[in-house]
Amino acid sequence: MALRAADQAFAERLRAALPDLWLGAPEPRYLEEPRGRFTGQGGYLAKPRSTAEVSALLRVCHAEGVAVLPYGGGTGLVSGQVAEDLAPLILSLERMTAVRALDADAIVVEAGMTLQAVHEAADSVGRRFPLTLASQGSAQIGGCLATNAGGVNVLRYGNARALCLGLEVVLADGTIWNGLSRLHKDNTGYDLRDLMIGSEGSLGIITAASLKLVVPPVEEGAAIFAVPSPDAAVELLGLAQGRLAGCISAFELIAKQGLSFLREVGPEVQFPFAEDPDWMVLIELGLPAGVSAQEAFADLYEAAGERVSDAVIAQSEAQRAAFWTLRESLPLANRRIGAISSHDISVPVSSIATFIASARAMLEGMGDYRINCFGHVGDGNLHFNVFPAKGRTRDAYENQRDAVKRAVHDLLVQRFEGSVSAEHGVGRLKVGDLETYSDPAKLAMMRAIKAALDPKGILNPGVVLRAEGK
Amino acid sequence: MALRAADQAFAERLRAALPDLWLGAPEPRYLEEPRGRFTGQGGYLAKPRSTAEVSALLRVCHAEGVAVLPYGGGTGLVSGQVAEDLAPLILSLERMTAVRALDADAIVVEAGMTLQAVHEAADSVGRRFPLTLASQGSAQIGGCLATNAGGVNVLRYGNARALCLGLEVVLADGTIWNGLSRLHKDNTGYDLRDLMIGSEGSLGIITAASLKLVVPPVEEGAAIFAVPSPDAAVELLGLAQGRLAGCISAFELIAKQGLSFLREVGPEVQFPFAEDPDWMVLIELGLPAGVSAQEAFADLYEAAGERVSDAVIAQSEAQRAAFWTLRESLPLANRRIGAISSHDISVPVSSIATFIASARAMLEGMGDYRINCFGHVGDGNLHFNVFPAKGRTRDAYENQRDAVKRAVHDLLVQRFEGSVSAEHGVGRLKVGDLETYSDPAKLAMMRAIKAALDPKGILNPGVVLRAEGK
Repeated sequence: MALRAADQAFAERLRAALPDLWLGAPEPRYLEEPRGRFTGQGGYLAKPRSTAEVSALLRVCHAEGVAVLPYGGGTGLVSGQVAEDLAPLILSLERMTAVRALDADAIVVEAGMTLQAVHEAADSVGRRFPLTLASQGSAQIGGCLATNAGGVNVLRYGNARALCLGLEVVLADGTIWNGLSRLHKDNTGYDLRDLMIGSEGSLGIITAASLKLVVPPVEEGAAIFAVPSPDAAVELLGLAQGRLAGCISAFELIAKQGLSFLREVGPEVQFPFAEDPDWMVLIELGLPAGVSAQEAFADLYEAAGERVSDAVIAQSEAQRAAFWTLRESLPLANRRIGAISSHDISVPVSSIATFIASARAMLEGMGDYRINCFGHVGDGNLHFNVFPAKGRTRDAYENQRDAVKRAVHDLLVQRFEGSVSAEHGVGRLKVGDLETYSDPAKLAMMRAIKAALDPKGILNPGVVLRAEGK
Repeated sequence: MALRAADQAFAERLRAALPDLWLGAPEPRYLEEPRGRFTGQGGYLAKPRSTAEVSALLRVCHAEGVAVLPYGGGTGLVSGQVAEDLAPLILSLERMTAVRALDADAIVVEAGMTLQAVHEAADSVGRRFPLTLASQGSAQIGGCLATNAGGVNVLRYGNARALCLGLEVVLADGTIWNGLSRLHKDNTGYDLRDLMIGSEGSLGIITAASLKLVVPPVEEGAAIFAVPSPDAAVELLGLAQGRLAGCISAFELIAKQGLSFLREVGPEVQFPFAEDPDWMVLIELGLPAGVSAQEAFADLYEAAGERVSDAVIAQSEAQRAAFWTLRESLPLANRRIGAISSHDISVPVSSIATFIASARAMLEGMGDYRINCFGHVGDGNLHFNVFPAKGRTRDAYENQRDAVKRAVHDLLVQRFEGSVSAEHGVGRLKVGDLETYSDPAKLAMMRAIKAALDPKGILNPGVVLRAEGK
């Protein structure tokens, strides 16, 4: 069924149905995405204040056949928040930021709250919401859940899906599903919560969520270990898991190339070693009472033998923060250099080293590139990004981009059974990849579920699955 | 659409399509369930040897409109494995028990393997598959996943859903979905894995699974703490989490009534205290290298003050095993006593104590009962079971059963926003409860998904959702 544009006639109808709704022209920021590859079309922007308003709004859109494009913090990297071929109703929940409930076990928040604000609310009761992203100051919790966001603490605490106890969702026809459970266990029927999480707004609009809080570990610390190779990094992880199972909060691989980019274009950071090693891992521990993080790191260093060539153990909170600033500056430096092709991929943990070596060898045969590979070793999740040779810009590589992307993905899927999107989602950017690399039965099931829950296809059309008739 | 019986004509057609398939009359055990409340009807039993056979079998059933009833280890407690009003094709995967792949990170197994056998395979590579159930010697991994099984280690490692990386599933029409991913992170589309897990065979037949393995903690130990009340147990958990975050593997509440039942009807166990305390918690810790479990328990005991009245810390592996034997004997003693009504419920952790007190007070006003309440404090999951007064049998209470069940569930849902099935699932036993207590939008979504993935309704009809026309 063809969708109609969110035009003036539609806006008038919507205003008539919801006289108190904030409705207007979208500012440019609602039509852009961080990598600057896509620009959205106008349409209208709505900023409802309540779940009831979202419901009433969806009822009108459903009746009129108007596409609804949910917009969170706008930090997504796969163009889930921008549609080039529609003039949709852009739906921002930025005015829905209430904390509906808070105790030591869970927090119930509205979808427009930033991840940072959720962290602060959890801190206020001595607890922690462990989902941590570089973009948490602007990323909204609704978007984090819609995209099943990951980040640096997945190894210990899981991704957004694992941290959510329940959802309130407005369905395509305006029906409100109250699934705001605060239960840790509930086996009454199909897992609709996890189906909605990661569906990128294509099955329903998340308006509120009940989130798991955790008790912060008594003793925390960070260290950067220099390792000779990715293989040594994976072995070090195994060794650390054997000694410190359950206490490793993060285990991040960093390549020399990432530090070179930081030295080249900034931002300014403190470098841990006088001479940048080929590979490093940033390790964060959260330990029980009575165990010193510094001693645990020292013991691990000793046990690691030749797997580790050098180490810096944070001696203060400031130094620990500096390590994380370094880690979180990597994507910004990457953006300043300008990638030819960025890959948010995952492989089985045991294949990390082989994949990196194989992909590097393959690309060396294809052209003159720099590769910056970093990521979450414990999750098998690498950000494998391909950049121009020094002194050149990505424009010079425009005609190689598709070939690079295709070659990396083919290698990844065909030889390593990997994923072409480990944590960023599908958005509009990777719809074609999904069609190319997914099991056909999976795609058929996804289409059947989309048709069952959103038969008119008004919810974020073109995201995850190709819109009908495209 | 009406389903037809798996009669002789159907069996002949199936034999013609799959001449090598084991097909015969089901022995009585395939028609029974542990609590003896339901008895299945005959039909035929098929024992395929491969996913290809399951697929071919489903194709025939789909074409003929014959119901398929998946049967795992038969240990489920909600009659998901027995249908009284159908003569279905019973499908047992007991011959599909291969380990398809095994390394330090993951194991890929066929669905008919027992949970115990999965544990042993994991042990053989120095790893652990942490899903632990009293029935693990007969429960099959396919059934554990289909019902999203829980158990005593959910607090640390999550339930079956959290421990599964990927699935191979045969859909209603025989299509095979190869989703046997060994990736820890994959954000390419809807979460079909978690949708299948917990769908109790009503959306697809799980034929194989890729499972997460964990590194066993270096130092493990168990203790039983006597506590004055459930409230003190919850406070003790909070205290333990503050000191030992990430290292608490189990935290099980046990009531004096449970020990009284064991003393009354067995099985024989070692009792931890000379005089049974009103309430106990069995705590299991898994700690990093260099930390002694006995010392951690001693420190916790000291910090607990009046929250704990006595404690026994296991001094040997044998004593630790004896603690767990005690815990795992509770359900057997319960069965020997014979419950009037059993409730596998969950509430927010902070409501555990108030729920127990309220339910007890309510039941005292209704009649002469004994209550045995035990369960997983950290998950908010209680097994709240109501028994006859001493010297009486449950037959004398037959006419009170529905009222007791209804009163407990009403209290639970209306006052505590709890779940009427925390870990056992819905099966056929709780379909009515789901209809009574679920959000209508949830039920409508579930029905839409069932219709989309199994339009003829042949997969385990009547489980989770009422079968069409019933």
